[in-house]
Amino acid sequence: MGNAMLLLLLLLSLIMSSRSLALNQDFCVGDLARGDTPAGYPCKPEATVTAEDFCYRGLATTGPTINPFNIALSSAFSTRFPGVNGLGISAARVDFSPGGIVPLHSHPSGTELIYVVEGTLSAGFISSTSNKVYTSTLHKGDLMVFPQGLLHFQINDDAGGDNATAAMALSFYSSSNPGLQIMDFALFANNLPSDVLSKVSVLDDLEIRKLKSLFRGTGSSIR
Amino acid sequence: MGNAMLLLLLLLSLIMSSRSLALNQDFCVGDLARGDTPAGYPCKPEATVTAEDFCYRGLATTGPTINPFNIALSSAFSTRFPGVNGLGISAARVDFSPGGIVPLHSHPSGTELIYVVEGTLSAGFISSTSNKVYTSTLHKGDLMVFPQGLLHFQINDDAGGDNATAAMALSFYSSSNPGLQIMDFALFANNLPSDVLSKVSVLDDLEIRKLKSLFRGTGSSIR
Amino acid sequence: MGNAMLLLLLLLSLIMSSRSLALNQDFCVGDLARGDTPAGYPCKPEATVTAEDFCYRGLATTGPTINPFNIALSSAFSTRFPGVNGLGISAARVDFSPGGIVPLHSHPSGTELIYVVEGTLSAGFISSTSNKVYTSTLHKGDLMVFPQGLLHFQINDDAGGDNATAAMALSFYSSSNPGLQIMDFALFANNLPSDVLSKVSVLDDLEIRKLKSLFRGTGSSIR
Amino acid sequence: MGNAMLLLLLLLSLIMSSRSLALNQDFCVGDLARGDTPAGYPCKPEATVTAEDFCYRGLATTGPTINPFNIALSSAFSTRFPGVNGLGISAARVDFSPGGIVPLHSHPSGTELIYVVEGTLSAGFISSTSNKVYTSTLHKGDLMVFPQGLLHFQINDDAGGDNATAAMALSFYSSSNPGLQIMDFALFANNLPSDVLSKVSVLDDLEIRKLKSLFRGTGSSIR
Amino acid sequence: MGNAMLLLLLLLSLIMSSRSLALNQDFCVGDLARGDTPAGYPCKPEATVTAEDFCYRGLATTGPTINPFNIALSSAFSTRFPGVNGLGISAARVDFSPGGIVPLHSHPSGTELIYVVEGTLSAGFISSTSNKVYTSTLHKGDLMVFPQGLLHFQINDDAGGDNATAAMALSFYSSSNPGLQIMDFALFANNLPSDVLSKVSVLDDLEIRKLKSLFRGTGSSIR
Amino acid sequence: MGNAMLLLLLLLSLIMSSRSLALNQDFCVGDLARGDTPAGYPCKPEATVTAEDFCYRGLATTGPTINPFNIALSSAFSTRFPGVNGLGISAARVDFSPGGIVPLHSHPSGTELIYVVEGTLSAGFISSTSNKVYTSTLHKGDLMVFPQGLLHFQINDDAGGDNATAAMALSFYSSSNPGLQIMDFALFANNLPSDVLSKVSVLDDLEIRKLKSLFRGTGSSIR
Repeated sequence: MGNAMLLLLLLLSLIMSSRSLALNQDFCVGDLARGDTPAGYPCKPEATVTAEDFCYRGLATTGPTINPFNIALSSAFSTRFPGVNGLGISAARVDFSPGGIVPLHSHPSGTELIYVVEGTLSAGFISSTSNKVYTSTLHKGDLMVFPQGLLHFQINDDAGGDNATAAMALSFYSSSNPGLQIMDFALFANNLPSDVLSKVSVLDDLEIRKLKSLFRGTGSSIR
Repeated sequence: MGNAMLLLLLLLSLIMSSRSLALNQDFCVGDLARGDTPAGYPCKPEATVTAEDFCYRGLATTGPTINPFNIALSSAFSTRFPGVNGLGISAARVDFSPGGIVPLHSHPSGTELIYVVEGTLSAGFISSTSNKVYTSTLHKGDLMVFPQGLLHFQINDDAGGDNATAAMALSFYSSSNPGLQIMDFALFANNLPSDVLSKVSVLDDLEIRKLKSLFRGTGSSIR
Repeated sequence: MGNAMLLLLLLLSLIMSSRSLALNQDFCVGDLARGDTPAGYPCKPEATVTAEDFCYRGLATTGPTINPFNIALSSAFSTRFPGVNGLGISAARVDFSPGGIVPLHSHPSGTELIYVVEGTLSAGFISSTSNKVYTSTLHKGDLMVFPQGLLHFQINDDAGGDNATAAMALSFYSSSNPGLQIMDFALFANNLPSDVLSKVSVLDDLEIRKLKSLFRGTGSSIR
Repeated sequence: MGNAMLLLLLLLSLIMSSRSLALNQDFCVGDLARGDTPAGYPCKPEATVTAEDFCYRGLATTGPTINPFNIALSSAFSTRFPGVNGLGISAARVDFSPGGIVPLHSHPSGTELIYVVEGTLSAGFISSTSNKVYTSTLHKGDLMVFPQGLLHFQINDDAGGDNATAAMALSFYSSSNPGLQIMDFALFANNLPSDVLSKVSVLDDLEIRKLKSLFRGTGSSIR
Repeated sequence: MGNAMLLLLLLLSLIMSSRSLALNQDFCVGDLARGDTPAGYPCKPEATVTAEDFCYRGLATTGPTINPFNIALSSAFSTRFPGVNGLGISAARVDFSPGGIVPLHSHPSGTELIYVVEGTLSAGFISSTSNKVYTSTLHKGDLMVFPQGLLHFQINDDAGGDNATAAMALSFYSSSNPGLQIMDFALFANNLPSDVLSKVSVLDDLEIRKLKSLFRGTGSSIR
Repeated sequence: MGNAMLLLLLLLSLIMSSRSLALNQDFCVGDLARGDTPAGYPCKPEATVTAEDFCYRGLATTGPTINPFNIALSSAFSTRFPGVNGLGISAARVDFSPGGIVPLHSHPSGTELIYVVEGTLSAGFISSTSNKVYTSTLHKGDLMVFPQGLLHFQINDDAGGDNATAAMALSFYSSSNPGLQIMDFALFANNLPSDVLSKVSVLDDLEIRKLKSLFRGTGSSIR
């Protein structure tokens, strides 16, 4: 291939890429490859958008297991489901084995609305003004809302025995990418030195070392 | 009862009402009785808020039937579920009999994300820029997003026969009160004079009279 | 041309493109060629912005005719007038021949405020909560607001006769790209199969075939 | 009237006022009497809303004169046109006598989009990043956008002579209550002491006294 | 006092209250007594607003001590400083004794920007996507930003000895009421049963009982 | 270097650039080189983000002097401190010599909250609804809020004498890039012709020529 042809190919691809950047108006299917902006991903050219961009079929099956919590989690945030980009909504599915737990966590930029598809859950969130705990038992078909940024949890109380049952819930969020900060992971699954962690959490060093070990964190001080 | 006492009672009730208006920070459970603002309902005093305010159990069962569409619809917008007030999310449940249809409609102020709980649906929305129709078949566990303000529909294609099956879907919205404008109701279930309607819809007068009759509208011109 | 020079040219063009991306602060004239984001188009470098970017002169004359409605429509959305990009406002002009009609339509992401420049219009919108129709007669100089996402219409009632007069109106929108979904085009100007359309609109097949023909839609089932 | 009856009347009025606070969904016509919130006025009960609430006819005629600028100004902000409350749009009309001027001003919370209905204007705004002035001549039918919060002006250059012509323009804003801070009024039409004003404006004392006199301000220091 | 006079007084107070609800445009000083809305407090009538409403002098001195963290905290959120209501900004002051610590906490609805007025701090936040810890040492005059909803902390590392020094920092927030959820208080300062807490935090029972005792929580199970 | 290798290099760089565009969720450190969008700068790939991106140390020292106002100003807007990009907050530092003045200015897209670190200031802003001036004296530790888009000023009243003291203040803004329009610069530091300026400001020509000279503006008409 000659130089002229190479140059031509280059120019052509530039022209095509700028031409393919047609205007979107009704939606903005995220073009993840071009990186994020504060308002979400740039839009895929409308000419390349198909109906399938607006569908996500990954919540039809159980997601990967989250240890040691006996749950499986699958999310449909804009990073996986670019069709919701810019539209202020997303979803996730949680499967609870008997005794399964979604541990204390918060969503930094979105409110969660949970719907129980199967089984029974104990769920609650903690107010920041009063530290008051709002808890309820959710049966099949019930909704509960967990306001943005507050610590909350869900538990499948049916913990075992011969008739132990699983549970399944769907969560929807008021953001196409609400974030998920699991407290145990934030504390114990990184390299935050254990003496710093002890200071800022008031947890004792033994507990910290035990949980850093469980959650594969590093940074325990040598004793 | 004397005047002084009556006055006292008045002042007392004023003082109590202002005292009971404690400050909310994390959430704003809607106090529907005080009327709406552009950002939602005023907040219930936090002291009177209980865990149950954050739960809604009305989607556990089938809602009222919408004729003649063979569906039943139940919604959990802030007007019924004040716990989502100000939080930018809400939900609804649709039960489809065999052949059931959610006819063309739009949500003036929210995007819809649907999840198929049971059965199979044909669903689609219409772009405003190109009038292009984006349709897909949704099986159990599938999600589809319908961008804000665009006409869309869902159909349970399993229309009959011996093995006809029902379907059930949940929809979540990026607004605590997204609105719902069903095209047929907007056109035919009010008193818009049929000659005006004919002009602005290009539908012929006979069709309009037939559908005004079906949807209990008035205003047909005498012929 | 040698390889080294080609490479140089490439690097140079990269450097130049990044240098030309100066920072904007007060405005964000849209650079349409780089495609949309959920918040609008990326900004033109301020160094290349001129006063003319903030002006649009296309509404001084009548726009293209919209058949069969006897109107001409010209819009100044951010896709044509990049100076309003990111600023939450845009405009359009409608010229009504005698009897001209802006048929039922909605703006998925913006409220419309109309001003009658010449003539008299009948206008109305349909509430989604109650299906109630709010209509009024607008004379020269009158304003009417059509809330976001709701079906609305405008009619030049002076339909003919010797003294029939034209009308002209300007509409402004609370979005730099509000969208425009004309009901007849959404229903009849695409390939939505007529049996599906009949189900989701309750219109009968004959009417659908007639209007698909009028609006150049396809997808009528063979009978 | 007895006490019991008075009490009854009180309770009744309370019940009625809470009953009349029906829920709005599509719009929020402002109830000015109940005072503002950061998002706008509380909504009138939907049952009391009529089509006329969505219309404003005050821009059909020339507004009050603004001295000494040879203009007349009439505005349709939410404070006068409660139908736009919460909808993010409003309007104003300016009539320019020959030589009329809208002096330097800014809108603290909204972008302005002006449309020239009659005549020719010189208009411009000043960038804050570079102090660059963007000016243009606007003929009948032209639009120009003035970004939020920036100083801008409009002039009817046809200042006199036998064929001097008036001009008329409509402005629309990306807020239902954009505010209007006219520089001369902010500086000279209040009681800001002239020595303070001189410090913060670098204008000399003589000029300040002259303009305080023109704009009826007080607070000139005695010399 | 007679009935008529009482009635008159009632009507008068109603009239006065509605008259005093003048329109605000530039600001919305919060009227806390009327309770919150999702967008903040209703506005005080402009006629009753004074310059002092826009000032807050409570950060000039050290606030109340927060045990056992060796810090004193004083906040100027809209609940204490109604002048920032609706304006999307607020502030707080933290005084650190030697070794003082702001323990792990998050702000559910605002980003924090800290400025070190005196002394030296170690500060950090934990990302939710990767659990990565971003830490830095902040000297007098340095700024650090803690994004909305993420766990973060600040430590005065100068923990003691003869030359131990205090530190003081100011924090500003991108919300007039950002909230403050201190992890230890959320976990241990309420009545969340310790067996539930153990499940959702993976902390062992002994640690939980110890910290519930420290933070005055209840709900420890009897062993 | 051969063509094939050049092509490979091209493809490689494309692949690498798309791989390095990892997804951000918690923050969006601005990548200034890629230019602005209406919502801020595109995000730096998370993999290249370090703790230092969230810190800004430029306010620890006095900024450049602003003549002739006897102040020094240093700002930490997103254009200099990309860590606040998309987070709705930023800061600035002002050092006042004795008699130093921040002249009349406004921030087109943000509210300012000032904190006095050292000294005493006279500060005020001007309402747009009533032209009322709200002024106060701010001592060390005091806060004052200046609502978005309104003209305001700060003065170090201690203007001289043997014991004249300096003052220092920090300002925080409800936007990562609030803008800064200094009235004198907007009027006199550009090429706006002095006859136009005289018309739109009502200032007399002599004053304009004097101040254009002081602020290095051009465009004075020859007299």
